[in-house]
Amino acid sequence: MNFCSDNVTGASPEILSALIAANGGAAMPYGADDITQRLQQRFCDLFETNLSMFPVATGSAANALALSVVAPPYGAIYCHAEAHINVDECGAPELFTGGAKLVTLPGENGKITAEALAHALAHAGIGFVHHVQPAAVSITQATEAGTVYTLEEIRAIAQVAHQYHLPLHLDGARFANALVSLGCTPAEMTWQAGVDMLSFGATKNGAIAAEAVLFFNPEQAAGFEYRRKRGGHLFSKMRFLSAQLEAYLTDDLWLRNAAHANCLAQRLAAGLRKIPGVTLAYPVEANELFVRFPDPILKGLQADGFQFYAWESDGRSMVRLVTAFNTAEADVDAFLSAAQRHSRPIVDEAVDEAIAS
Amino acid sequence: MNFCSDNVTGASPEILSALIAANGGAAMPYGADDITQRLQQRFCDLFETNLSMFPVATGSAANALALSVVAPPYGAIYCHAEAHINVDECGAPELFTGGAKLVTLPGENGKITAEALAHALAHAGIGFVHHVQPAAVSITQATEAGTVYTLEEIRAIAQVAHQYHLPLHLDGARFANALVSLGCTPAEMTWQAGVDMLSFGATKNGAIAAEAVLFFNPEQAAGFEYRRKRGGHLFSKMRFLSAQLEAYLTDDLWLRNAAHANCLAQRLAAGLRKIPGVTLAYPVEANELFVRFPDPILKGLQADGFQFYAWESDGRSMVRLVTAFNTAEADVDAFLSAAQRHSRPIVDEAVDEAIAS
Amino acid sequence: MNFCSDNVTGASPEILSALIAANGGAAMPYGADDITQRLQQRFCDLFETNLSMFPVATGSAANALALSVVAPPYGAIYCHAEAHINVDECGAPELFTGGAKLVTLPGENGKITAEALAHALAHAGIGFVHHVQPAAVSITQATEAGTVYTLEEIRAIAQVAHQYHLPLHLDGARFANALVSLGCTPAEMTWQAGVDMLSFGATKNGAIAAEAVLFFNPEQAAGFEYRRKRGGHLFSKMRFLSAQLEAYLTDDLWLRNAAHANCLAQRLAAGLRKIPGVTLAYPVEANELFVRFPDPILKGLQADGFQFYAWESDGRSMVRLVTAFNTAEADVDAFLSAAQRHSRPIVDEAVDEAIAS
Amino acid sequence: MNFCSDNVTGASPEILSALIAANGGAAMPYGADDITQRLQQRFCDLFETNLSMFPVATGSAANALALSVVAPPYGAIYCHAEAHINVDECGAPELFTGGAKLVTLPGENGKITAEALAHALAHAGIGFVHHVQPAAVSITQATEAGTVYTLEEIRAIAQVAHQYHLPLHLDGARFANALVSLGCTPAEMTWQAGVDMLSFGATKNGAIAAEAVLFFNPEQAAGFEYRRKRGGHLFSKMRFLSAQLEAYLTDDLWLRNAAHANCLAQRLAAGLRKIPGVTLAYPVEANELFVRFPDPILKGLQADGFQFYAWESDGRSMVRLVTAFNTAEADVDAFLSAAQRHSRPIVDEAVDEAIAS
Repeated sequence: MNFCSDNVTGASPEILSALIAANGGAAMPYGADDITQRLQQRFCDLFETNLSMFPVATGSAANALALSVVAPPYGAIYCHAEAHINVDECGAPELFTGGAKLVTLPGENGKITAEALAHALAHAGIGFVHHVQPAAVSITQATEAGTVYTLEEIRAIAQVAHQYHLPLHLDGARFANALVSLGCTPAEMTWQAGVDMLSFGATKNGAIAAEAVLFFNPEQAAGFEYRRKRGGHLFSKMRFLSAQLEAYLTDDLWLRNAAHANCLAQRLAAGLRKIPGVTLAYPVEANELFVRFPDPILKGLQADGFQFYAWESDGRSMVRLVTAFNTAEADVDAFLSAAQRHSRPIVDEAVDEAIAS
Repeated sequence: MNFCSDNVTGASPEILSALIAANGGAAMPYGADDITQRLQQRFCDLFETNLSMFPVATGSAANALALSVVAPPYGAIYCHAEAHINVDECGAPELFTGGAKLVTLPGENGKITAEALAHALAHAGIGFVHHVQPAAVSITQATEAGTVYTLEEIRAIAQVAHQYHLPLHLDGARFANALVSLGCTPAEMTWQAGVDMLSFGATKNGAIAAEAVLFFNPEQAAGFEYRRKRGGHLFSKMRFLSAQLEAYLTDDLWLRNAAHANCLAQRLAAGLRKIPGVTLAYPVEANELFVRFPDPILKGLQADGFQFYAWESDGRSMVRLVTAFNTAEADVDAFLSAAQRHSRPIVDEAVDEAIAS
Repeated sequence: MNFCSDNVTGASPEILSALIAANGGAAMPYGADDITQRLQQRFCDLFETNLSMFPVATGSAANALALSVVAPPYGAIYCHAEAHINVDECGAPELFTGGAKLVTLPGENGKITAEALAHALAHAGIGFVHHVQPAAVSITQATEAGTVYTLEEIRAIAQVAHQYHLPLHLDGARFANALVSLGCTPAEMTWQAGVDMLSFGATKNGAIAAEAVLFFNPEQAAGFEYRRKRGGHLFSKMRFLSAQLEAYLTDDLWLRNAAHANCLAQRLAAGLRKIPGVTLAYPVEANELFVRFPDPILKGLQADGFQFYAWESDGRSMVRLVTAFNTAEADVDAFLSAAQRHSRPIVDEAVDEAIAS
Repeated sequence: MNFCSDNVTGASPEILSALIAANGGAAMPYGADDITQRLQQRFCDLFETNLSMFPVATGSAANALALSVVAPPYGAIYCHAEAHINVDECGAPELFTGGAKLVTLPGENGKITAEALAHALAHAGIGFVHHVQPAAVSITQATEAGTVYTLEEIRAIAQVAHQYHLPLHLDGARFANALVSLGCTPAEMTWQAGVDMLSFGATKNGAIAAEAVLFFNPEQAAGFEYRRKRGGHLFSKMRFLSAQLEAYLTDDLWLRNAAHANCLAQRLAAGLRKIPGVTLAYPVEANELFVRFPDPILKGLQADGFQFYAWESDGRSMVRLVTAFNTAEADVDAFLSAAQRHSRPIVDEAVDEAIAS
């Protein structure tokens, strides 16, 4: 049973069906097809605003391309020290911006704070020619620590960013998980709270490979389409990207998938909290858990064949467990009972064996 | 009926089936899945050599990433003036190489010649610090003019390139069409002729979005995987890219698809040659035709609703017609009879109408 | 005697004196010194307009930095095929723009024409996402062929550029030579004719290493100062750059220097025209001559120790002769009489020797 | 009296004289002149090894170009959080490397430690495709805190770097100050301690604008000359750069200048230590002091017209005082007595005034 990531899963059946349905007949390429046209309107409706939407296939592409239209090469992009854009994209933002600098902020539970941002910007040396110049702020929702910014937190960060005329980008690789967690509308969690650009992720939550870059101020998207093409991210048979996203939004598939994953994460967390010696590094607010196991449990789970990643954060070792749209309740329960079993003192095991024999 | 491009088509059913088959169960991400592992070996077998293979989703990504590992920022990449990398990728090679320069060569029928290349390299100023330095040669097979380099031509170009220690890249967006046209083996058309790196295209010939970058000298691929990730081109659910490519190679699907497209291109060409005033700009050797129609035919075809692109090449106007893996013979015939009909002098039409009434 | 280039010369004594004068006392760095402040005003006065001025040390830096503020990475910069920015800067514009493409135009005598530019722009595919997008036009004055655009020619080019909302950049590495040649004012040759940005060269005409980038629309300079710093082109002891430029402009030193160089170029041209078999490839309008010598003359001059570069242009071999601000009349005359001497048939030489002995 | 920086000074008279001496006659451009040729040998002799030497005009250019030849775009360059390359070059390393990432290390007194570096490299994820890959280590000598790495410290850092096959770059903007401070040879402080590349600064210590990039393994310099040209940093009249460096090295001018500056820094430090309430943030080991003054002293000094920069480091406010090759002993003493005077309690001042009246 594999708890490594929500990208070890396949796709939702509805999304595969949409691909098959999209396959009939000729369609003009590069986004001039009907599905993509419909999708643009669909996103406007969903977010209750006029926005610009660009499908791409990976989250790194979405993030880096979005940032590239707002950050000049001499720009600084403020983000959490453990942000995916800073740590896990092998320098994609630097490539697409032409070498802008990611300036990292510390922050508990994977979140930056408005205060830390304000402090950093106040000391950034705006107009001082020797320093890179503040160009954007990027936060991740849900965060890399599996936590979720409250609307108040987002608003406070946006307020600071906008005070400095900086756009606020939201890396929404797990946007649905966060949205379900907060129980608010897409508009409330984004532009109404001050978010300017969104990497709207679908891949981790049931798509094959599909994300959408949304600009809530369409005029801010100037140049995006050239940068997407230039980055090799403009799909000729775009309808297949758009079809994934359309199916993802249809009949609340995206919300159902995320609700399932979040629910199982809570089930897993609840079970783990009962096991002596097991601690959760961060609040569990979406579909990721960061757990410190006593060594015997850890070794026992690995020996049982459970798969998960060792993780390191703030210099501390832990493991990451991720639940997905299709994680089985039974798998979670199996994991918990295995962990429970390995937590028993060795003397008990000897007794067990005596009884069993 | 749409003759705009082979990218207006959907995908082969076999490829969609492969996606569905790939969907079962968890699979490690980023290429650590079984299908991708199998695919690497499959390509080695197909090309009869030890090679390195990297799936990506678009041809522009394949080309630009391949070139980026061999061309330094101060490098020059030699290609035909109408090469896709020079004209139709919005500067993707420049992005991924960090600003290398595409140096263009003229050439009949969309082909560069070994002679023109040798002349250019002899005057390139190698070691002259003011000039960009030759770093790679790139040819397209089949070419942007719908023609196909012979093995002798490829060998001659490779010989010149290698004399200057330059790798030869082949943009194979329509690799299968060229291979079927030549009737040789993949090995013969590539590394045995001196090709060092190949963008192996599948999208235009039946896949949804799948290409493979092949390095015939695996050590030349150093750094590729970081550049792919950094470019946002490393798919987390890689199995779905690899599954497309695997199905594409299975049971000769790729060759059957290309043979069909080529065959209909010949049928179309044969029919057009019979129509007075219609001329073909280049030899028809793959699945593209570049045609100059008398104005009444052109207007008539457009009025009938046939779709195709206006094209411009060497300052001359023409139209491009592309046949694909799923083009219907009936569509070709309908196109031809419409063209035939519009070619008749107006006086005939009056007669027709008189007779018809 | 060295006719290789105007950069084989040292500096005008006035400029060295200015360095020494600038050396007294402390001065705030990075341009916050008095000389730089004065220089900004000096340039405004000289060009009779409010402009932004940035000293840099090399022409390649001036050109590439100027272009980098107006051309996005997906931009196209239109220039002559033999433009210095295209041929002799090892890709500097590509580095500083993040990979913009130089699109070259042909043109007699080293000049592009408004017509060729208009044709290229009409076929550029503006808004077509697959093509790089027109971003700037750059011309060189005096040109790389030693010719000078007339004011009418500049105006016509500017008109086309502006019709497409493209800024016109002028590479003025030999600005003074062109200005003296035309006998007009700096304003007339630049912003009044439609030039938006100027690389104002001083190095080739008597400075040690000093150029100024001028923006005639100061708001177009946004970001320039960060790009200059980031490019390593912001001098801490800026006063020494500015002092060179100030001395250069004082008492018409720059015009006197250029007039001298141009005058000797005319003297050289006049002498060469009298020698049978010697042809000038282009009109001589500034301080460069491109000459085709009969082989005996060429070999004779080389044997005599005269220094000059072999040149190649449009596939033809020639030599380039450059006169400078400090070229001695006697050197020109020595060159001419040597050329004259080597042009006589061998039989004459034998006679000479007989007579001499 | 200006203690802002060692770049508020002019140049040493010997260096201006060298410029004048270099001005005679024609000289081949771009480094093919006699002075540059001699200088290459001079540096080999000085460093007692075969090295490659490239003059440039600014420290940012030297650092960024040096790093660009060893760090691929997906590379990571390890440096102190307050390193000039990270903080004060507006992203120059990112520009020249094509977007490599500066990974910062903390460290007391402006120095990184071998231990911190080893820890970071052990956790860098080498071979992990999502992370940028370690490519180089850069230290500054003297540091940005005015301290000096001991030879042992450099050796220890080099050992860690080399264990990971990373070259060690040394930013020597104040190389001479550090060398004089340690009292060792140039070879001992560089390649013998494991330094691979050196930005050898002269500008801050008496030159107008001259630095040299040294590669102690000449084969590591491959491509440097193209990158320098492409960066706009290849001077046509190179002799004037080289002449500055030659004069700088002649008769130990560089060492004498640095010894003077260091000596006055010690004098200043000694004086400040005697003033109650004044603290030095770091050991004074070269020519920079970072001082925290009681507010009355600070305000008093400013009112007196003494010039210096406010500084911020580790979130603490202080001022930076820099002595230079030509700082007058009298100026230091004037500064000290002013500080002393402002340190007296207000009651004393009243008494003073009473007495004076």
